[in-house]
This record gives sequence, C-alpha cells and structure tokens, in this order.
Amino acid sequence: MITRRTLEQLDQNDPLAPFRDRFVLPCGVIYLDGNSLGPLPRATPARIAHLIQHEWGEGLIRSWNDAGWIDLASQVASGIAQLIGAPPGSVVVADSTSVNLFKSLAAALQLRPARQVIVSERGNFPTDLYIAQGLTTLLGGRHELRLVEPEELPAAIDEETAVVMLTHVNYGTGAMHDMAAITHAAHARGALALWDLAHSAGAVPVDLTAADADLAVGCGYKFLNGGPGAPAFLYAAPRLHETLRMPITGWLGHADPFAFETTYRPAAGLAQATVGTPPILSLAALQVGVAIALEAPMSQVRTKSQAQVKLLAELFQHAAPGRFHRVTPDDPARHGSQLCLAHPDAYAIMQALIARGVIGDFRAPDILRFGITPLTLRYAELWDAAEILGEVMAQDTWRDAAYATRQTVT
Amino acid sequence: MITRRTLEQLDQNDPLAPFRDRFVLPCGVIYLDGNSLGPLPRATPARIAHLIQHEWGEGLIRSWNDAGWIDLASQVASGIAQLIGAPPGSVVVADSTSVNLFKSLAAALQLRPARQVIVSERGNFPTDLYIAQGLTTLLGGRHELRLVEPEELPAAIDEETAVVMLTHVNYGTGAMHDMAAITHAAHARGALALWDLAHSAGAVPVDLTAADADLAVGCGYKFLNGGPGAPAFLYAAPRLHETLRMPITGWLGHADPFAFETTYRPAAGLAQATVGTPPILSLAALQVGVAIALEAPMSQVRTKSQAQVKLLAELFQHAAPGRFHRVTPDDPARHGSQLCLAHPDAYAIMQALIARGVIGDFRAPDILRFGITPLTLRYAELWDAAEILGEVMAQDTWRDAAYATRQTVT
Repeated sequence: MITRRTLEQLDQNDPLAPFRDRFVLPCGVIYLDGNSLGPLPRATPARIAHLIQHEWGEGLIRSWNDAGWIDLASQVASGIAQLIGAPPGSVVVADSTSVNLFKSLAAALQLRPARQVIVSERGNFPTDLYIAQGLTTLLGGRHELRLVEPEELPAAIDEETAVVMLTHVNYGTGAMHDMAAITHAAHARGALALWDLAHSAGAVPVDLTAADADLAVGCGYKFLNGGPGAPAFLYAAPRLHETLRMPITGWLGHADPFAFETTYRPAAGLAQATVGTPPILSLAALQVGVAIALEAPMSQVRTKSQAQVKLLAELFQHAAPGRFHRVTPDDPARHGSQLCLAHPDAYAIMQALIARGVIGDFRAPDILRFGITPLTLRYAELWDAAEILGEVMAQDTWRDAAYATRQTVT
Repeated sequence: MITRRTLEQLDQNDPLAPFRDRFVLPCGVIYLDGNSLGPLPRATPARIAHLIQHEWGEGLIRSWNDAGWIDLASQVASGIAQLIGAPPGSVVVADSTSVNLFKSLAAALQLRPARQVIVSERGNFPTDLYIAQGLTTLLGGRHELRLVEPEELPAAIDEETAVVMLTHVNYGTGAMHDMAAITHAAHARGALALWDLAHSAGAVPVDLTAADADLAVGCGYKFLNGGPGAPAFLYAAPRLHETLRMPITGWLGHADPFAFETTYRPAAGLAQATVGTPPILSLAALQVGVAIALEAPMSQVRTKSQAQVKLLAELFQHAAPGRFHRVTPDDPARHGSQLCLAHPDAYAIMQALIARGVIGDFRAPDILRFGITPLTLRYAELWDAAEILGEVMAQDTWRDAAYATRQTVT
C-alpha cells in the first residue's frame, strides 16, 4: 500500500531532487502542466534583465557582435542538438514549431518530387495537420494527406509516400511512437520521416541519429522551459544538407547575409533554415532552460517520469475508482511524460482542480492531461494531487456552474 | 551660418524633446542607428521583469488567460494599425518580417492565379528578393521575379503582373516611393501592391487605407523600438480578408484553435495570418515601444526627421567638404528618416566613427547610413556627430588597420 510517507522517501532518494530549486514554483500549486508551459528557471530573470538593460540599453546595435546575439541561436541549437541525439550543425533554432514544420515538410516534398502522399496520424496535433493542408493547397492540390490510426501506419506507407510526418509523443494521449521502427518502415518504401518532438525534447530519450530520422521540429516552451512562445527548432540529417532546399529563404539563411546580394544563395549546411532576425529576448530565455536540461541525465529523467506516471495513475484510481478511462498506454515504454484520462466532464473537472491548485490541462473533447516534469515534480505532490482529485470527485465540486464555461487555455 | 547654439535652440523649442527621457541612451554615444535597432524604452525592463516573475513564474500556464497573453498580439496589432492608417482588425503581429513577406506574397499570388510576374526593385532589401525567389522555386518556377530600377517601375507593371512588391523606404538609400501612385499604377493593371514598411512604420507618415494598399509587412525592432528581433506585422486590406488564403496555416490561425479539429478552417478576418504561439517576452517589449510611438504626433515626427536629415547633410558637408556622395534624395518629400552617404572606404570610416561613439551603420558595398530617430535624437547631437566625422576624415583615423577588418553587423 502506497502512503505519503513512501512518496516522501522517494523524494529523499531522488537524484533529480536538487533541480527543483533551479525553478520558481508558486506556493499552493501542484504544477502538472510543464508540457504546456515549463516553469520559470530561477536564473532567467537576471539573464533577461542584463540582456535588456546592458546589452540592449547600453550596447544597442553593437550587441549583435559584442554580446554575441548573432551567434545566440546557433548556441542554443547546439544545446538542443545534444538533447535529441543530433550531430553538431544539424539543428537550427528559429521561428515557431508550426513555421518550422512548414519549412521541413516543404523541403521533404521537394526531396521526393515524384511522390504525392504525406502520411500522418489522425490524432496528430492539429497544427501539424493544418500546416500540411495549407502547404498542399499552396502547391496546387496534387498532394494527398493520408491520415490513419497509429496501428495502420506501417501499411499506409507505400511507394507513393513522400514523407511520414508524425508527432513522437501524442499531445492528447501521451502515446509514444517507435521512432526508429517507423523511420525504418518509411525508408524501406523510399519515403522520408519527419518527427515533431514537441512533447519529447527534454522529456524522453530521443536519438535522431540512431533512429536515422530525416527531419524533425520541436518546441522550446514545454520541457525545455524556455518561456511562453519560446523559439522552436528544426533538425535535418546531415546527409540531406547538400540537397535540401528550404522554401522560406530569408537573409539570415543566405551564404553571406551582409554582402546584400540580389540573388539568394543558401548558407552551408542547415544554416539556410534560418529565416529572419530571431527574437533575442525569447531566445536568451530559452538558452537558460536548455542549459538546465543539459545538466540532467536523461536516463534519470526518464526513470522518474515513468515512475511518476505509474504512481499518479494508481493514486488517481485509488482516489476516484473507476471514474476515469486511462488513455495513456499502460506500457511505460510506449508513453511520454504525461498521463491522460478521459471523462465526459473533463473540462469542468479540470477547472475545479485548477481552482484547488492542481494545474493540468483540458484537451478537447474529453481529456484531462497531466504533464510529468521530473526536474520539478515531487513524488509527494502526486499524493496531494490525488487527494484533491478525490475530494473534487466525491463532493462533485466540478458540477459548480463556475467551472462549466469554457475559457481559452493554450 | 549654423552654430551649435542654433541647434541647442532648436532642441529647446522641440515639442518632441520630452520623449528623449522615455528611453535609455548610454553616455558618450550619438545614436544614429535606431533604424537598425531602436533604443530601449525606460518602461521596458520593469514590464518584462513583471511578466517573467509574476506572469510566467507565478501565473504559469494560467497567464494565457489571466494575464491576457492570448490577446497580446492583437493588442499590439491594434496599436500598429493606428500608426500605419490601417482599420481595426487588418493587422496581425506574428513571426518575422521575412516570414510575413512569404505569407503575404504567397497570398497575393493565390489571389492572381492567372498572372506570373512579381515586380520589384533591384535595390530592394535582399530578404525581400530572396523570399520571392524561394517562393517561386517552391511553386515550380512558373513565376518571374522582374527586377527594375525605381524609375522603370510604372512601365514594368503590365497585364502579367500579379503583384508589385516594394519596400516603401529603401534601406540603403533612404529613398521613399510614392505608395499611393505606385499602388494606383498596379491596380490600373489589375495587379496587387505589397509594401514592406520596415523603415516606415513609426518613422514616416503611412496611410495604407488612403494609398489603397493591398498587403503590407513591417518590422518591430526599428522605429517601433520593440527590442532585438521583436515580432513583425502583416497587413491586408479588409476587402481581401474573405478571399485571402494564408499559406502557413497554424493552429492559432484556425477558426476555433481549442476545438482541436482535424481540418483547418481559417479564422475570420485576418486572424488566419497568425500561425504558431507568439514569443510573449519579445511581444511584450514591442507593446511598450508601440505605445510610445502612438503618443508622438506623426506630423511632428516627420517635420523633425526632415529637418534633421537636412541639417545632418549640411553639417557633414561642412565638416568634410566633397568627401562623400549623398545617395539619399535631396527632396525631403522623397526620403525616409535616414541619411545615406557613399564613400569607397565606407566600412572603415563607419568603424572609426563607432569607435568615437557615433553609431550609424555600414551597408555594402559603400554606404554609410545614419538613421534619424526624432523621438530621441537631439539637434545638438548632429553638430557633435559632424565634428567627430570632420576629425575622423581630417586625421585619416579610419585608415587605422583596426577598422579595416569587417565584422558582422546587422
């Protein structure tokens, strides 16, 4: 039988426990939403204050050189590369995940000009599907976006398939694809594999090189703790750099941006995937988050994440037996760092939980999503979260009209 | 004869003089580069510190609603709209200028599917040309980018022209197009007009409605003082919102982002031009800059800007007679808020000036560019800048080897 004491002991023996103090976490909150917006690293406010007051305020335009702003994106990219098993020079930090997906997908289609099909998952994060729909419309409608269920994936990849575009860890279920196996299946048919790592980078082991992935994109404001709307990243396997052509060709992706030539010449390697001037304030905040992620051994992060998903599921089941349907796979090897539970009144229940300080999020139509962030989440907090869930369900707190009206929550 | 005393008196009578104290400006610097990176508003550090520590640190994910992050981009857009003569709802703040140019240009081509030509200026800012080249490659090479000199523009617009894409104020010369006349010429041939306002917004009077412009993009980190890499903006005339289709269709441009539908449905109006999650830190800094710009009457800004361009040119000519070739048009109605001078050794001379605290920038191959920012620039500083230029030229300071090696300056 699990007790709070058991969990406190797990915290005492947790090798990741010291990371908690590297972040600001408000009192009275159990934060299970680091997969929507990672918490604030304690080092970030001073870094940004220095950047604004000294680098911008005093250094002005000189800071592009003197404070190294011009290299900031590639420095952050080097850090992210290490987190996702990418060799140096194969990651660019720029734009949003959606824009990077557009760039990567267009590049993939250009690399497979004779093929018409993009294979993806029906339950993929909508922006991924929307980006594919917008791109295929732009290209004249000659491509097909083939949406299937996860189990239908291998059979759906055929000789017409240009690219298999998937999110590694599903935002709404937490299910994790076998990246290497699907990439292999894609390659066996001559197709490319493009992975969205939004819920993977910093959360689960990712080795793009070992998986032989072709392209990838990911997000800076979830498990990388880069702050709201942090810049995103883009990966391309080195073997593609020579032939790859990015569709959005801005001056910072030019071979010699400050020569101000009239004709575009792509920068060497993946640098051509940089488009415009990066948002330096947001980028510097991302740098702080990535530096912390690099200090945490991924094997420890993964072990704790899997243990916490399992414990949270058991504690919730004990607190409100049979009230929720677990949608996250039971097999710890097949899920990411989140627990997703279905309930017809998921929205109101999550609002009631948030009002009591247990912050997860709702995903339409009926999912309560609880993100597990091993760098900050204590085992004992799982106990407290379950206790509050139990009360909310026993007292029908969530039936309060105040929780029924939907607000926008990203 | 102009004396420093004359200029000091102009400062005393300057209605914009109080704006100087709204910005941080370092000692020993005469800043003539606000058109590359606007100076830091005094209110920005506290705004960003509050955002980071309270909204992000304490509010966490709840701040998307509770701190209004979800509406921040549209609030900033409303402010920018007022600066450029755009009706409410016709401006979106998102992405970089380059990405917005890609989106706008693709939308323009989609609105004129039977036409193949993009007309632009050979001396346009390179990223504008690169973006057009990348887009036309993506679309299969059936479009032509027709580059002409400014005086050839009217004749170059014909029945094949889909869109005329121009930067309103040229980055390298300061020459300003007659937006209304060229837009009219484009419309007379059935073409659209797309304007890049990078060096216009906040710097010169812009009335997109009066000019009947179709599309526009612009930059947040120059005269809007939004900080390094601040988000950019995109305008589309309301008459186009119904038929316009953006090529990059992200979830925040969906009619109901949080319904997580499988199929993209564009948001009403121009909201479809929003793509991914915006960089909130950078966006909040831009909001501060835009708010200040809105307080300054544009007629006063323009009058001072024109007076300062004229005075700076005269003082420079007096300090180093015949040493530079003025490339900015003499007619004050035909230039933006900058003075550009050509010299074969422009790079080294600018480095020598910067070393003495006179910060302008170099633009390849031979341009010294001096940005005029009437909210912060004192008339007396023009005198001092000219004095330093005179010394640098008289003493051949700039021939020092230290100034010969090019560094990257954005």
